[in-house]
Amino acid sequence: MNKPYVLGIDIGGTNTVFGLVDARGTVIVSGAIKTAQHPDFNEYINEIYVEATKMIKSVGAEGKVGGIGVGAPNANFYTGTIDNAANLIWQGSLPLAESLRSKFGIPVAVTNDANAAAIGEMTYGAARGMKDFIMITLGTGVGSGIVANGQMIYGADGLAGELGHVISRRGGRPCGCGRNGCLETYCSATGVVRSALEFLDASPAVPSLLRNIPSGDLTSKDVYDAAVAGDPIAQSVFEFTGRVLGEALADFATFSSPEAFIIFGGLAKAGELLFKPMREAYQANCLKFQRDIKILPSELKEADAAVLGASALGWEAQRLQNEADKTAGVAVNG
Amino acid sequence: MNKPYVLGIDIGGTNTVFGLVDARGTVIVSGAIKTAQHPDFNEYINEIYVEATKMIKSVGAEGKVGGIGVGAPNANFYTGTIDNAANLIWQGSLPLAESLRSKFGIPVAVTNDANAAAIGEMTYGAARGMKDFIMITLGTGVGSGIVANGQMIYGADGLAGELGHVISRRGGRPCGCGRNGCLETYCSATGVVRSALEFLDASPAVPSLLRNIPSGDLTSKDVYDAAVAGDPIAQSVFEFTGRVLGEALADFATFSSPEAFIIFGGLAKAGELLFKPMREAYQANCLKFQRDIKILPSELKEADAAVLGASALGWEAQRLQNEADKTAGVAVNG
Repeated sequence: MNKPYVLGIDIGGTNTVFGLVDARGTVIVSGAIKTAQHPDFNEYINEIYVEATKMIKSVGAEGKVGGIGVGAPNANFYTGTIDNAANLIWQGSLPLAESLRSKFGIPVAVTNDANAAAIGEMTYGAARGMKDFIMITLGTGVGSGIVANGQMIYGADGLAGELGHVISRRGGRPCGCGRNGCLETYCSATGVVRSALEFLDASPAVPSLLRNIPSGDLTSKDVYDAAVAGDPIAQSVFEFTGRVLGEALADFATFSSPEAFIIFGGLAKAGELLFKPMREAYQANCLKFQRDIKILPSELKEADAAVLGASALGWEAQRLQNEADKTAGVAVNG
Repeated sequence: MNKPYVLGIDIGGTNTVFGLVDARGTVIVSGAIKTAQHPDFNEYINEIYVEATKMIKSVGAEGKVGGIGVGAPNANFYTGTIDNAANLIWQGSLPLAESLRSKFGIPVAVTNDANAAAIGEMTYGAARGMKDFIMITLGTGVGSGIVANGQMIYGADGLAGELGHVISRRGGRPCGCGRNGCLETYCSATGVVRSALEFLDASPAVPSLLRNIPSGDLTSKDVYDAAVAGDPIAQSVFEFTGRVLGEALADFATFSSPEAFIIFGGLAKAGELLFKPMREAYQANCLKFQRDIKILPSELKEADAAVLGASALGWEAQRLQNEADKTAGVAVNG
């Protein structure tokens, strides 16, 4: 039996946000707790349970939640675990899905944040009706979620879609993954800051608003604001970031020839500052017959996006549970 | 109703090979015609029909062929057409599937040669039982076929899996596609020859067996033979080719995190000369958690491989037809 709501949980390094979502993608009510304030993982899961249950009761939705979907860094759809996530305080392999399932008593599905965003976009956003698209999330890092034949690609081990770690510049900038030149060292929010510092250093004679900000305090938002204000260094940073990303998309297109790329996350809010050089670089670098592949901004509302993405996976959890029940029923009856 | 045989057809620029194949992947009988000797496409299709029918009769298999699978350059699974194949004499869009279907009166499915090889490998070869793998074909060019979630990835337009056109060296060697630095300009048979000529030029003082061969006559087989004979230039060409390919595989892994890469085609016969530097470069460049992805040679017998690959798609054609018949039946009855 399908129930009318799902619970979406987005686990970030700082905050954990959860929301009750209906089949149309409306976030009925939402809440949040601080992720890093719980050194003990079980205690953390317990606080999610306590707070989310309170929230569900506050709108009279007890017993009406059919599934829980969770987006979390390094979360694996197959194993239900979070494994060695650099941005979380708990180390090792964490039994995320199993812990939540035993607390809430309803089916749980987990995946990494970028896959959750892709499922959200497919369920409620810019990718509705698309069977083949690639989601690119531009945040602190660069994430991706790949849908082909209408299905999420999880790979043999649940760890597919790490396009932020395609090598964009061989021997380039050191990356948190231990290698050099990964796309995310250029096209993430932190990549934008690195580019700005490099460009400022490389052109000491060029005046720039960014020189008023101590280098340790510089954010991608500062670079954006300066670019909007006409700052030439800041503008060249977005030109460069867009170009590197557009070149990368041209390579990604050869893989799954998607209908569209959907661009999501903080940096995507830079709009044409980023999209114009990205589209131009895509056109200049793609195969002739892939020129019509669209590059679209996400249509998920920024504030709700993470929870919506995660919640979409809650329907999947419910569906898988229903199938499992049916199979078990057949086995019993047959 | 399933029939016991399928017809596999492999269309190459020079030869068109066809074979009658059973469910175990045994090529019962095969034949060939010259592709380029038929300026008229319909007349070409007719000769395939005449010769294949003769062959089918010769083993008493009339009426026992359930489907036809075709691998051809630039063939599109969705549209059934060959579009602007550079290596074929006919231009424009050719109705390949439809022409064969109306001649033979049995279901036909077509795809490009690399996808056909991947389906062959999954049905009869090294990828049996795998749901996620990437086939790389090293021939005159570099082709690829990507399987994820147990399904071939065709993309939104049927043109997915063009990994030979990922940019391996930005601004690198000119490619037939009109761009520069594509993987296939380095890691195909022709790429090996280009590397050899470059390396010979760059080290005029180093003696090499390859200097005895006029540059216009040099083949990748010559480079292989010289490498086996201990020629340092030829050996460094294979080192370089394997390294470029291994680096590329590390990037490909981030996409679909496959269980294995299967390496197929003429160059793959170079064995450890190619595989050793390829594996080393893969290990040096892959993400930590993707170190266990296997790099395997194809298990399809070289002589039969193209026909077997194509034939595997014949089962798919038969299955799709059966499904369509069932759906039509439901519509009529319902």
